[in-house]
Amino acid sequence: MVMDSQPNPPLCPFEKRFPSQLVRDDTFYMSLAYNQAIDAWRADEVPIGCVIELGGEVIASAHNTVESARDPSAHAEMLAITQAAASIGDWRLENATLYVTKEPCPMCSGATLMARLKRVCYAVPDPKMGCLGGASNLNDLPRVNHHLELTAGGVLEDECRELLQTFFKLKRERE
Amino acid sequence: MVMDSQPNPPLCPFEKRFPSQLVRDDTFYMSLAYNQAIDAWRADEVPIGCVIELGGEVIASAHNTVESARDPSAHAEMLAITQAAASIGDWRLENATLYVTKEPCPMCSGATLMARLKRVCYAVPDPKMGCLGGASNLNDLPRVNHHLELTAGGVLEDECRELLQTFFKLKRERE
Repeated sequence: MVMDSQPNPPLCPFEKRFPSQLVRDDTFYMSLAYNQAIDAWRADEVPIGCVIELGGEVIASAHNTVESARDPSAHAEMLAITQAAASIGDWRLENATLYVTKEPCPMCSGATLMARLKRVCYAVPDPKMGCLGGASNLNDLPRVNHHLELTAGGVLEDECRELLQTFFKLKRERE
Repeated sequence: MVMDSQPNPPLCPFEKRFPSQLVRDDTFYMSLAYNQAIDAWRADEVPIGCVIELGGEVIASAHNTVESARDPSAHAEMLAITQAAASIGDWRLENATLYVTKEPCPMCSGATLMARLKRVCYAVPDPKMGCLGGASNLNDLPRVNHHLELTAGGVLEDECRELLQTFFKLKRERE
């Protein structure tokens, strides 16, 4: 008998979003982050996606690849930040906004500060692990000399939460 | 006149350490992290170095490369964690110890948790930016289900501090 060590992910019951290119608001960019999360699901990764916007253009987009890369730092936000810095040739992302479907973890919250992002907009707050207002707020450290503008929840929040919750529910049913 | 856009770093007045291979204690591994920091200085990067130990062997060693890589995530600890995970083929570094010459920043503190390291040993506490006891302690988040053993300062602390302080002093004198 051949053991299948890498079973296919549960079939994703959600579709990608096709926002109008003409209205580049928070929902537009979060829709692209959501589409990255769908790609993560299809690759059997926790469905979290991220894009980074600068001057109205998307300069980075990524999803979680911890399992396939076997790298604990391969969260969507980390990959997008590295991509964005490479894209503009500077590690300081001072005028850029990062959109992510779930509140960043301790590592990624710290990375948004170190990258000097202008703003972070996340869809689903995370009171357990989130460190931009959920479990803690690294943006409030008094002696860190960079602070982010934050949009904490409210943009595609229900859609991004349902994607995550359904993924974990279907995963558990297969165990 | 040709402008030199990348001036050489200030000459490093410190030497690398040559600890005995026979005594593999915290000072041994921190000495290797210190040597990485010396390499960082010579590359004109902030002199912070890191090694990761597993089962008595060094499975990763790295130094800060933020400036040369133009990547805000290219801190010594992040690079070492990625290297260690690649080395053992698993993102969970559960029995490994990370040695770093300065207390990890918010991003790297978070990464040590996400990587599920067994222990973190740092040389110089950082009350401004450190997030493993200095400015904050991410290891104390109540709902994070992994906690680190911490050795916070005391191992080559004076040497690692002098290296950092001298680097910044010489840099300022050239400005």
